[in-house]
Amino acid sequence: MAGGKINIAIAQSGGPTAAINSSLAGAFKAASDNENVGDIYGAINGIEGIINDELVDLRKILTDDENIELLKVTPSTVLGSCRYKLPAKNREENVYIKIINTFERHNIGAFFYIGGNDSMDTVMKLDDYCKAVGKDIKIVGIPKTIDNDLPVTDHTPGFGSAVKYVATTLQEIIRDSRVYSVQSITIVEIMGREAGWLAASTCVLRANGEPAPHLIYLPESDFTIDKYLDDVAEAMKRYRAVIIAVSEGISPDKLPSSFGSELTDAFGHKYLSGIGKYLEKITADHFGCKVRSIELNVMQRCSSHIASLTDINEAFEIGGEAVAAAMRGESGKMMVFSRISNEPYRVAIRPEPVENCANKEKLFPTEWINSDRNNVTTDALNYFLPLIQGEPEIPYRNGIPVHFRLNQ
Amino acid sequence: MAGGKINIAIAQSGGPTAAINSSLAGAFKAASDNENVGDIYGAINGIEGIINDELVDLRKILTDDENIELLKVTPSTVLGSCRYKLPAKNREENVYIKIINTFERHNIGAFFYIGGNDSMDTVMKLDDYCKAVGKDIKIVGIPKTIDNDLPVTDHTPGFGSAVKYVATTLQEIIRDSRVYSVQSITIVEIMGREAGWLAASTCVLRANGEPAPHLIYLPESDFTIDKYLDDVAEAMKRYRAVIIAVSEGISPDKLPSSFGSELTDAFGHKYLSGIGKYLEKITADHFGCKVRSIELNVMQRCSSHIASLTDINEAFEIGGEAVAAAMRGESGKMMVFSRISNEPYRVAIRPEPVENCANKEKLFPTEWINSDRNNVTTDALNYFLPLIQGEPEIPYRNGIPVHFRLNQ
Repeated sequence: MAGGKINIAIAQSGGPTAAINSSLAGAFKAASDNENVGDIYGAINGIEGIINDELVDLRKILTDDENIELLKVTPSTVLGSCRYKLPAKNREENVYIKIINTFERHNIGAFFYIGGNDSMDTVMKLDDYCKAVGKDIKIVGIPKTIDNDLPVTDHTPGFGSAVKYVATTLQEIIRDSRVYSVQSITIVEIMGREAGWLAASTCVLRANGEPAPHLIYLPESDFTIDKYLDDVAEAMKRYRAVIIAVSEGISPDKLPSSFGSELTDAFGHKYLSGIGKYLEKITADHFGCKVRSIELNVMQRCSSHIASLTDINEAFEIGGEAVAAAMRGESGKMMVFSRISNEPYRVAIRPEPVENCANKEKLFPTEWINSDRNNVTTDALNYFLPLIQGEPEIPYRNGIPVHFRLNQ
Repeated sequence: MAGGKINIAIAQSGGPTAAINSSLAGAFKAASDNENVGDIYGAINGIEGIINDELVDLRKILTDDENIELLKVTPSTVLGSCRYKLPAKNREENVYIKIINTFERHNIGAFFYIGGNDSMDTVMKLDDYCKAVGKDIKIVGIPKTIDNDLPVTDHTPGFGSAVKYVATTLQEIIRDSRVYSVQSITIVEIMGREAGWLAASTCVLRANGEPAPHLIYLPESDFTIDKYLDDVAEAMKRYRAVIIAVSEGISPDKLPSSFGSELTDAFGHKYLSGIGKYLEKITADHFGCKVRSIELNVMQRCSSHIASLTDINEAFEIGGEAVAAAMRGESGKMMVFSRISNEPYRVAIRPEPVENCANKEKLFPTEWINSDRNNVTTDALNYFLPLIQGEPEIPYRNGIPVHFRLNQ
């Protein structure tokens, strides 16, 4: 650390998104542009990289603007991730001591953690510990999750790109489902175990006059099988190809207790199966027509080739604002978006005490679910639309998007 | 039909692709630019639309270049499709009589059928029938299939876009799979029941220095479970996150006879499951590490937002060449690509007698499979690469790609 300068470290945690690297890029750029910042470290595999002192020198890796631009549109976590949750400090203080040792060994005065609910728990515990033991190390959280379930913030970086991928893909599935002259039902299972934001966001297709998905079911929407079958029957009267968007986390009333556990075939082989396959079976049995279910799987969280420019830019900015906040002395905060206006779309970024965000989930508002509990309202549409605007410029080589890679 | 002009009809058949509408657009454009062409009809739901006289006037629908450009990048079949196979003429001649009636009612002198193996069977039978009963109606096939399994032609329209989608998505899955510090195995199931072209094409990632997928298995590659487990064990020594691309049509030696049929859970509910889930179970049982399988499902055939410009343009051109061929008197032909050179990539388009193409499948060449039967050669890479070059300009509205729609 050169005279008076603060070294910093940045880490990424939790499940991948298309925007989590953009927040890393934004934090790095703000730090490298700040004359009070010395070394800029990246920790490998989240907080584990701090505990185990596995750091990389980001100034040697992100050597020019081209690298930074490439990192912004590279999905997943270039530094790796972890699912590690810090123990209570009075139970395993040795973990905290290792962390402080790493910080002190490298003269790190500020640590930035990009992650979701669990990662904000780490920010909170670490900030508490530093304060308790009198270490002046600023700890700031940068939100990310495709689930959009972090409290206080208007939305989370990574969510807009997931919405854009899901809507784009769903629209293509809609085209695909309409080709034959027979009645069909297509069930698309979308990520969201507790909160239905991503499945709800498929309503954005309405903005372009697309009536599908005709039915949208969320964990928040009080799902029953009988009501579902009635809804589908009603939709079949109006549409030859019925499209249904469903959160993976809905809890049908008649779900067998074995659901989510393994299924066994005649040979004793076991198979895991999700809600989409479950509904496919029930629906096909009931209606006897062509039914298929599609799981969008991990593509929902890593499809940077169809990322939202708004999302990528906001993720970059909130990373930079986290650095600015720490440099002016903030700690124990998560950076949040406040929506100032919808048309034109404008947001402000500010630090929020992390205890208001950690270990809490923001569910989809029940007032945005329609009275039939099988779709969402125009207020929801207006909330989602600004988040998916714009397309980042994706560099291609040999016909394939170029990704930033830390190592081969 | 105005004096001396020929009316024509175009139909789309078989499974959707990202390029089948581009061939329709190309055939329409060539026809509308040809002063010898009168009315241009589209048949709804393939040959069924001819049998049932369900035609639309494409000149009233594709009214300007903007419409045509939009149609080129709209996935699936805007006119609908069918899986209808013409009966032998001596068994059900009434079907042929209905077809001829429709042609004569609208003075249709040329019919273009965009489709795969089965559709070329229709072209062949219909051309035979017309010749047998002395009707001067030109019947020309325009190839399409993401399976790339049509004989004679170097490749098929629709395949390049499927390759580009699968490679782009697989690269994102690779990024996603590497985030945690634990050993993992990811199995990606790719379309191809008889021919492994699409799974084989994942080798294109090598062109950008990506070693994954580390293992590639095709229906043509003589798959055994023991050899597979040995291959995976070997790959695990070198890679923390092993990536495996597998054609849906591989036939493991130890596949239970119940495979492909339904699985039953403890409650009597049945579930369908593919080769990916099957290998996931076997792999997890054997290695005990994190294993997941991902099915790319119908997205492989309809993801026009990441289409190959080369593919979209070639699909357009081959549609136009089909019209040119019919206008100079060709019939009973399928249009084919011949590859003239690889660098620079150049192809020629010519008509081929349809009997050389119909009801035949072109498998992936066994000489392009490596000696370990778990990957493909550089010759394969060189064959695939030109097909995925370039990105079409996709129009967006409200952050979502705009699709051409015949009706809401």
